Amino acid sequence: MKILITGGGGLVGQKLARRLAERGTLRGAAIDEIVLADIVEPAPVDAPFPVSTRVGNIAEPAEVAGMIDDDTTVIYHLAAILSGHAEVEFDHGIAVNLMGTLHLLQRAREIGTAPVFVYASSIATLGGEVPDPIEDWTATNPQTSYGTQKAAGELLLNDFSRKGFVQGRGVRLPTISVRPGKPNRAASSFMSSIIREPLNGQEAICPVGLDFQHYYLSPRMCVENLVRVAEVEQEALGMNVNMTMPGLTHTIGDLIDALRDVAGPEPAQRIRFESQPEIEKIVMGWRYAFNPAKALALGLAADNSFRDNVRYYLEDDKPSP
Amino acid sequence: MKILITGGGGLVGQKLARRLAERGTLRGAAIDEIVLADIVEPAPVDAPFPVSTRVGNIAEPAEVAGMIDDDTTVIYHLAAILSGHAEVEFDHGIAVNLMGTLHLLQRAREIGTAPVFVYASSIATLGGEVPDPIEDWTATNPQTSYGTQKAAGELLLNDFSRKGFVQGRGVRLPTISVRPGKPNRAASSFMSSIIREPLNGQEAICPVGLDFQHYYLSPRMCVENLVRVAEVEQEALGMNVNMTMPGLTHTIGDLIDALRDVAGPEPAQRIRFESQPEIEKIVMGWRYAFNPAKALALGLAADNSFRDNVRYYLEDDKPSP
Ligand SMILES: NC(=O)c1ccc[n+]([C@@H]2O[C@H](COP(=O)([O-])OP(=O)(O)OC[C@H]3O[C@@H](n4cnc5c(N)ncnc54)[C@H](O)[C@@H]3O)[C@@H](O)[C@H]2O)c1
Ligand SMILES: NC(=O)c1ccc[n+]([C@@H]2O[C@H](COP(=O)([O-])OP(=O)(O)OC[C@H]3O[C@@H](n4cnc5c(N)ncnc54)[C@H](O)[C@@H]3O)[C@@H](O)[C@H]2O)c1
Repeated sequence: MKILITGGGGLVGQKLARRLAERGTLRGAAIDEIVLADIVEPAPVDAPFPVSTRVGNIAEPAEVAGMIDDDTTVIYHLAAILSGHAEVEFDHGIAVNLMGTLHLLQRAREIGTAPVFVYASSIATLGGEVPDPIEDWTATNPQTSYGTQKAAGELLLNDFSRKGFVQGRGVRLPTISVRPGKPNRAASSFMSSIIREPLNGQEAICPVGLDFQHYYLSPRMCVENLVRVAEVEQEALGMNVNMTMPGLTHTIGDLIDALRDVAGPEPAQRIRFESQPEIEKIVMGWRYAFNPAKALALGLAADNSFRDNVRYYLEDDKPSP
Repeated sequence: MKILITGGGGLVGQKLARRLAERGTLRGAAIDEIVLADIVEPAPVDAPFPVSTRVGNIAEPAEVAGMIDDDTTVIYHLAAILSGHAEVEFDHGIAVNLMGTLHLLQRAREIGTAPVFVYASSIATLGGEVPDPIEDWTATNPQTSYGTQKAAGELLLNDFSRKGFVQGRGVRLPTISVRPGKPNRAASSFMSSIIREPLNGQEAICPVGLDFQHYYLSPRMCVENLVRVAEVEQEALGMNVNMTMPGLTHTIGDLIDALRDVAGPEPAQRIRFESQPEIEKIVMGWRYAFNPAKALALGLAADNSFRDNVRYYLEDDKPSP
């Protein structure tokens, strides 16, 4: 089995590739090859089978053509530009997040074998004028361009699946925390920074108050869910192949308590609270009360508590000093 | 004020143009010009101001450029290929219904004056795994490619509005009946045929049973609603500019009763019941229980009973023998 991961150089793509390398199988078949496609050269991944990399832009149909071969069986479509970025570069967001997704779906259809197509959507598709909690059947009424483009991609994914062109499954990722590395252009970037930087001996800024609530999942559990959702039978997905990926709702206070529980009192003292209106404007529009019923029924899962998220960061990602 | 109507040669476009010609004003300003754009030359419309026609394909950005001028104040975007058609010509549906809408939004943004952009969406966006009744905040989980493309257009419209590029308002039209003229490629075509053909002395085929329920609106009331929704203040639309246009739910039996009430017992005898699996497959996926709360609050309205629909057909559309 040959697997494509778009955005294979990104956080989730790299961790997913490493996990698949460790497993060696997916959907009951041995993995023969993984292709990591990204607009920047992805870091190499060790595996007992070939892992190739391919630099290309999903906004260009000709470059997408080379990412998917006749024998590509599973496509993980993770490439995207993130919320803060798509908000300031509107046309770039349309080109990558919406058109890129359409080009990949069209190419997957073209090979004629209805490959499994796992689509990383986002809880940023949810918001606006809808009641709490947000169910799998609540309107996507996003209040960002990123969320809009992801939601339009969900609709296309469902229709390509209904037509039998792909075996689609779309999962709305909660905010992945603790994310390793540097701050990025996601408006949610601080939600990892306030744990990660203090653990690495650095200061971090929190632009929202202690009672700000949000919906989180650890990278480790996100990857387990991406494996699981690829393995589900198409029939089990029903008439909407898109669903919220399970997460947990926490306040900033909960995050800091977990940081203290796992790492002692000292790191938390490096968090400074400071208003950042541009970030606040975006994240205040996000929702935190979700009922991920479909995903839970399919065997996807959340973390047990945010202490897990802190521990996984220390185990999996913290740079050695 | 200059108004563009895409799909200006179609049923709703022609009736809307004639109604605007009769009114002479919109949003409190005198209408100076209407442009009817369509892929086939639209029939001329008499008015006390110039009504020009423009033949062009909304799937082509270069042709869309010529439809919208710097002084276009209101855009009615009605051009589309309909449900039955988009289901068999998948790529054509994407090109016209999805990309055409995106091209028009981009061109409207380009002129920089945030024109009013009224978008004819459809109740075909609604369906799938959602509870009844369908609220304005229920997921669009369409079970046709047409519905998918319209729903993706709604998302784009809302985002272009949120960004201040256009003053968007999307209305999900109920099935318009009694539709004049000939049967078309909409899967709902029979819902007008079974009234219209008998009134014109011809036989008609009904592919569903007497208790099949559906959601209807007369062309006359649809046009009144399209006028009204263009006049609403942007702020009143809230965080989702898309809404279900009010209609009434009727069984086929109700339609035939109304036909008998208005036109006597004879025409109804020309209806034959005959199964058509391809049509049934599509229309059985459609929903009929809607709560069009937002539109009602904004002053849009449904007919009083299906007798209105039959009467309007006789008054406005029946060809003289
Ligand atoms: N991390 C989160 O909190 C989170 C939350 C919700 C949804 N998601 C979604 O999950 C997916 C993976 O997230 P991530 O955290 O790994 O993001 P990431 O930014 O680390 O990875 C995305 C990758 O996509 C690549 N990319 C961007 N534009 C591209 C283009 N035009 N062509 C090819 N590749 C391109 C980037 O180079 C990057 O490596 C994304 O689709 C993201 O929108 C993530
Ligand atoms: N009539 C209904 O029951 C109903 C119900 C729900 C939604 N709608 C929507 O309302 C709108 C108007 O409906 P209608 O009944 O007048 O439809 P119609 O088919 O009579 O008119 C649509 C017009 O669009 C034109 N068109 C098609 N492709 C085009 C292209 N590529 N470029 C330019 N023009 C193109 C057609 O030539 C036609 O004149 C449509 O968007 C339709 O999807 C209608």
